[in-house]
Amino acid sequence: MTSYNLLLLPGDGIGPEIMAEAAKVLAALSDLGLAHFETEEDLVGGAAIDARGNPLSDETIALAKAADATLFGAVGGPKWDGKGPFHLRPEIGILGLRKALGLYANLRPAKCYGPLATASSLHAELVSGLDILVVRELTGGVYFGQPKEIVTLQDGQRRAVDTQVYTTSEVERIGRVAFDLARKRKNLVHSADKNNVMRTGTLWRETITDLHAAEFADVTLEHILADNLGMQLVRKPGQFDVLVMDNLFGDLLSDVAAMLTGSLGMLPSASLGDADPVTGSRPSLYEPIHGSAPDIAGQGFANPLAMIGSLAMSLRYSLDEPDLADRVEAAIESVLEQGLRTPDIAAPGQNAVSTAEMGTAVAEAL
Amino acid sequence: MTSYNLLLLPGDGIGPEIMAEAAKVLAALSDLGLAHFETEEDLVGGAAIDARGNPLSDETIALAKAADATLFGAVGGPKWDGKGPFHLRPEIGILGLRKALGLYANLRPAKCYGPLATASSLHAELVSGLDILVVRELTGGVYFGQPKEIVTLQDGQRRAVDTQVYTTSEVERIGRVAFDLARKRKNLVHSADKNNVMRTGTLWRETITDLHAAEFADVTLEHILADNLGMQLVRKPGQFDVLVMDNLFGDLLSDVAAMLTGSLGMLPSASLGDADPVTGSRPSLYEPIHGSAPDIAGQGFANPLAMIGSLAMSLRYSLDEPDLADRVEAAIESVLEQGLRTPDIAAPGQNAVSTAEMGTAVAEAL
Ligand SMILES: CC(C)[C@H](C(=O)O)[C@@H](O)C(=O)O
Ligand SMILES: CC(C)[C@H](C(=O)O)[C@@H](O)C(=O)O
Repeated sequence: MTSYNLLLLPGDGIGPEIMAEAAKVLAALSDLGLAHFETEEDLVGGAAIDARGNPLSDETIALAKAADATLFGAVGGPKWDGKGPFHLRPEIGILGLRKALGLYANLRPAKCYGPLATASSLHAELVSGLDILVVRELTGGVYFGQPKEIVTLQDGQRRAVDTQVYTTSEVERIGRVAFDLARKRKNLVHSADKNNVMRTGTLWRETITDLHAAEFADVTLEHILADNLGMQLVRKPGQFDVLVMDNLFGDLLSDVAAMLTGSLGMLPSASLGDADPVTGSRPSLYEPIHGSAPDIAGQGFANPLAMIGSLAMSLRYSLDEPDLADRVEAAIESVLEQGLRTPDIAAPGQNAVSTAEMGTAVAEAL
Repeated sequence: MTSYNLLLLPGDGIGPEIMAEAAKVLAALSDLGLAHFETEEDLVGGAAIDARGNPLSDETIALAKAADATLFGAVGGPKWDGKGPFHLRPEIGILGLRKALGLYANLRPAKCYGPLATASSLHAELVSGLDILVVRELTGGVYFGQPKEIVTLQDGQRRAVDTQVYTTSEVERIGRVAFDLARKRKNLVHSADKNNVMRTGTLWRETITDLHAAEFADVTLEHILADNLGMQLVRKPGQFDVLVMDNLFGDLLSDVAAMLTGSLGMLPSASLGDADPVTGSRPSLYEPIHGSAPDIAGQGFANPLAMIGSLAMSLRYSLDEPDLADRVEAAIESVLEQGLRTPDIAAPGQNAVSTAEMGTAVAEAL
């Protein structure tokens, strides 16, 4: 039985609650003799600030590098908002990990589960069966470019600067990920930018165009302005398959795409780097896209399915266990078909289950 | 009878078609003896590139400065895409005007007209009566910050840079516009940023907070992360009244907000500067938000109502003719109630009218 070594970083807010359910599913897979999981747990984000004064310690980065995959809950909350210096806020827990591990490819599926189509604010016929994959660049752009600073001017005014930077190779490698994934899906990529306003947009569009011609001419490529994409996602989301875009557009538009499904609490994500040429191991991190939801933390009714779905993605992309990934995803579908719902996805009047009940049900459905 | 001097810049794509209908409405107002309009017309964008090799000439800027208000159609299209240098693309026609006239405040109402609520991709009960006002900063941020360039590196790679810059006073003045407008509406402002990632976000949030405390404590202020706003707009748009944000977030999220109404062809916008302390005249430009729509240009069935609605905004904000503005807006409502629809807002199976028929109907309804 293959043994895997996973790092669990629950983080803040509902992070610990949902991570406990992912751990249940891991234990169930072990019990069934399907694989063996060693897990280690560490603090990150606000929890790590409180305990150590540092949202992301070097030891945590080292643990993540050594692990076969890292499962991440969520970071941040009002407790730490606007307190302490910018480089020590909870979000550094995730931004720093993405950068330190070189996780440049963020895969954010926006899938609408059949039994949940009526939860969408869009008409059900526009979203049922929806299956969009946003491929977001994750280690470049305005998130990391320098200068990034606030300076006080002589007249007492302050002046803030953020810098969006992209190089050809950064755009090429994320484009390659998108085209490769499209080949296993509907063979259609929309690349979004603001090439009418941004120089990084010009470089983005030209690089994706060249890459497409050189290596992926069999895939259909469409360029679209990011603002128009925002509209088209609302208007007719079913026209899209794979979407590729920069870090900031990916942040905003993957959230819009996610909300179309009506069930944010269902959506996982994977963040991947390149395999090490010597060891072959590929850095990776898996997290739900819903964030730390401080308003409902500690009440035991957060939806753990996005976290468990993220675990399934880790089985697929990092542990090379596609059968186990299928099995976990089937278990998620089956509890939905049984009618189990946490409050966020319950229809009005429908009985809701707790975080723990949902996790247990998935583990049993395995 | 007061006489006004308007500059008409039809631009590209459907711009000329819809501007002709706004001109019809102006003529009707003159014929009714309600005001007298002198109009002058000039080229801008791709049309100006074709005729003069320059998307925005100094003469055009001078005409706009001298006019009581400028009506703008739309610019851009595939004909000019990726051709010619970055500083001579059609979009300079609009970006250059915004900058040259100091039009820092972009007002983008996303209003759902009762008879059109079923055109939205969202459930009608989420959008009927929807009335959001996006206040977008329009002369700063990543659109204009320097450096903004592409350089070729020694290894042959290219490196592109865009720079987002904001100063305290730029944020203050747009915040003031938002709070002032909120007082005339539901007294609620949501300010969006990415203060967890961007230094300009930190400055934005702190400046808006301070301004609110100092001058607008009677208005309810909520801060929201821009990605979360993207989601919340889709989830429950009715929770918002006035939204204020930077140039790029405003570009994306005003388009998302607009699409919620289901009728992009209905939505006007106003771009305003500060009144000249000596002459008292306030630079302004009015344009539909839908863009040049090259795919349907020249076919005579574009929806002119957003252009005519923009004319109504100019009567309200620049010409101090609120009664005439009301009258034009009532005429728009009345043609909708009569059941007139251009194809973009026609229900399946419903007969559609042409651009010219719609314009004529509005003029007659006055
Ligand atoms: C928590 C925050 C820094 C992060 C981001 O902006 O990338 C989040 O919104 C996300 O999308 O993963
Ligand atoms: C045409 C383009 C430059 C413009 C922008 O990005 O501002 C448009 O999208 C808008 O929103 O007015």
